[in-house]
Amino acid sequence: MGRLIVQKFGGTSVANAERLRNVARIITETYKAGNDVVAVLSAQGDTTDDLLEKAAEINPRASKREMDMLLSTGEQVSIALCAMAIEAMGFPVISLTGWQVGLKTNRNYGDARITRIDKDRITSELGQRRIVLVAGFQGINRFDDVTTLGRGGSDTSAVALAAVLHADLCQIYTDVDGVFTADPRIVKDATKLDEITYDEMLELATLGAQVLHNRSVEMAKKYQVNLEVLSSFSGNPGTKVKEVVKKMEKSHISGVAKDKNIARLALVGLADKPGTAFKIFSLLAREKINVDIILQSIGRDESKDISFTVARSDLERATEILERHHESLGFKRIEVNAKSAKVSIVGAGMVNSPGVAAKMFEALYDAGININMISTSEIKVSVLVDESDADRAVQVIHNRFFREFGQR
Amino acid sequence: MGRLIVQKFGGTSVANAERLRNVARIITETYKAGNDVVAVLSAQGDTTDDLLEKAAEINPRASKREMDMLLSTGEQVSIALCAMAIEAMGFPVISLTGWQVGLKTNRNYGDARITRIDKDRITSELGQRRIVLVAGFQGINRFDDVTTLGRGGSDTSAVALAAVLHADLCQIYTDVDGVFTADPRIVKDATKLDEITYDEMLELATLGAQVLHNRSVEMAKKYQVNLEVLSSFSGNPGTKVKEVVKKMEKSHISGVAKDKNIARLALVGLADKPGTAFKIFSLLAREKINVDIILQSIGRDESKDISFTVARSDLERATEILERHHESLGFKRIEVNAKSAKVSIVGAGMVNSPGVAAKMFEALYDAGININMISTSEIKVSVLVDESDADRAVQVIHNRFFREFGQR
Repeated sequence: MGRLIVQKFGGTSVANAERLRNVARIITETYKAGNDVVAVLSAQGDTTDDLLEKAAEINPRASKREMDMLLSTGEQVSIALCAMAIEAMGFPVISLTGWQVGLKTNRNYGDARITRIDKDRITSELGQRRIVLVAGFQGINRFDDVTTLGRGGSDTSAVALAAVLHADLCQIYTDVDGVFTADPRIVKDATKLDEITYDEMLELATLGAQVLHNRSVEMAKKYQVNLEVLSSFSGNPGTKVKEVVKKMEKSHISGVAKDKNIARLALVGLADKPGTAFKIFSLLAREKINVDIILQSIGRDESKDISFTVARSDLERATEILERHHESLGFKRIEVNAKSAKVSIVGAGMVNSPGVAAKMFEALYDAGININMISTSEIKVSVLVDESDADRAVQVIHNRFFREFGQR
Repeated sequence: MGRLIVQKFGGTSVANAERLRNVARIITETYKAGNDVVAVLSAQGDTTDDLLEKAAEINPRASKREMDMLLSTGEQVSIALCAMAIEAMGFPVISLTGWQVGLKTNRNYGDARITRIDKDRITSELGQRRIVLVAGFQGINRFDDVTTLGRGGSDTSAVALAAVLHADLCQIYTDVDGVFTADPRIVKDATKLDEITYDEMLELATLGAQVLHNRSVEMAKKYQVNLEVLSSFSGNPGTKVKEVVKKMEKSHISGVAKDKNIARLALVGLADKPGTAFKIFSLLAREKINVDIILQSIGRDESKDISFTVARSDLERATEILERHHESLGFKRIEVNAKSAKVSIVGAGMVNSPGVAAKMFEALYDAGININMISTSEIKVSVLVDESDADRAVQVIHNRFFREFGQR
């Protein structure tokens, strides 16, 4: 029974002629099984970096519009070459750019949001039983100018196409076997999850698991797209991402994630009057600096401390903004720790299972790892630790939840 | 008084960051002088060859449609980078691809012909006083698929845009100072022509002068586009190409050209009956083999010989076709000379000046160079010589017409 399957292949999967042939093989095998196939491709390996370098040499402050014009060529090269590989195997195929598939976006060059997809062209090509290859990461705005979708853009292209085409499945091919209980490079006995919910995946994506970009997961959840994350190299079954997964027996958590791109700021000795927190965070928001974990100390001696985390790349700017408002905010000093890391456990079962957070803290305590800040949501618990402790923290937490309960 | 000027820059002119900055300087100086500027760019240096190599590695018989999808990225990279260079100089600029400027072509992938240009987008950008950069060599057909224009395609893009926009001037920037009386690499005292007619340029282009592609010259003549060929490196004034040029005083010819891509075939001992020539050349035409010079010997002993020239790359195929029809054509044998060259003199004044051809033959005779075939038109005389004699033939003919009459 033929289905419509959208497949996405990342930069490492299409990096050279041999890998493109491998991708062509995966696509044509899906097609031979009687399915309609739409495959979304990223730029080859280091192409995007090479183009960025060329641009930097000419103009380090080039406009985003021209940058999008430049970068979008990378995906176009990939789809053309992959189409040639599929032609060589004797299958009907056509490659289409962002503008050719009518992937419309807002005008936000470099980080555009998809507003609409005119599916006529794809539907017509599929109707002629052609394999359709689509350039990921790119669209056009209402001026008919090329836009790119920002980080993880090809994932988003694939999920958006799956949504609008009502695809039966959206497979995200990458260089790992799927979503793991922890990063396999850190935790040797990390195991692949067969299934995970959108919400869990979202927390993991946001927390730096780097398997799927959170925008694509949000969109998959919104349009109930059946996602699967799998390897283009191994041929193993991957991880299915969906609304509800079968009950977990042995553990209440799905995985342990780590994000090293964290810096911590503390404003010490703030006057204990209302509105201070509001002032601080609206100043930062106005400059588009995202604040993650916030901790306010209990007031004493008429003063209080407020600590919070930002992305490491925003640290300098955040400090500078706060110093500029030193007087009106009225703090004694700013303390900065650029070398923080966030370690998190994620699990949809957590909400009904008291003691999960306590077990995490205990594992860290037993390992002598100091917790600097804590943040929780319904399906996750995050702690801030020193960057040097981060890998060990992931390991001991993973041991406590997975090894001691046995493999999931 | 501001004019509209279309400028075209070839692959060597945009090969790296430094040269792109040089091109940006030429464009912005034209703009600063109060002109509207539309600049058409080719792909950087070896980009096209690199892409062809990538394609060949994957599929040596890739479809032309996917090849056009691949190759058209080269010009897109050029316009984006050049726009960035112009932005860095502080001028308003926008880059546009073939589809964005509405350059419509027929469906002949790889060698498409321009059918129409929707000039709205360019006109609107020029109306906002922006410098407009256009990707050369590319368009779209009525299926909204990318097409490329074949050899010399960027010249054709530039002339077509100049025609449809009613530009005051179309400047073709290249790596030589203009059109010369002979190839300066062969003839040391070859001089640059200040002016040349479309018809002369057309003969020179066809004859292998390699300054301008003949399609672009034909189009310039048809739409009376004022052309100028000049160097992007030297800053010297170039050669103007137009309908009528001022009377030539010292010489009746404009230049001497050479084409080494020639092979000669002779069918020896054909039965002397009507229709043989027709049969031979319709067979070749059906296989899209262009025949240039044709010579038929006077019949003797009830048989005749027919010799003709083809492009060297067509020689094998032409021979094979003729052998296949050996019986019906009824010749004794085929003689082949793959190492021929065509040397030609071109000049609009020739038609009113008897003795020009004789002077050419005399120069060759004095130099001991054998003439194998002769072909003439109103404004040119071509002779076929052995390839090894070609450069010397150009030299002695040039001496006879230019040095002995003094420089033009």
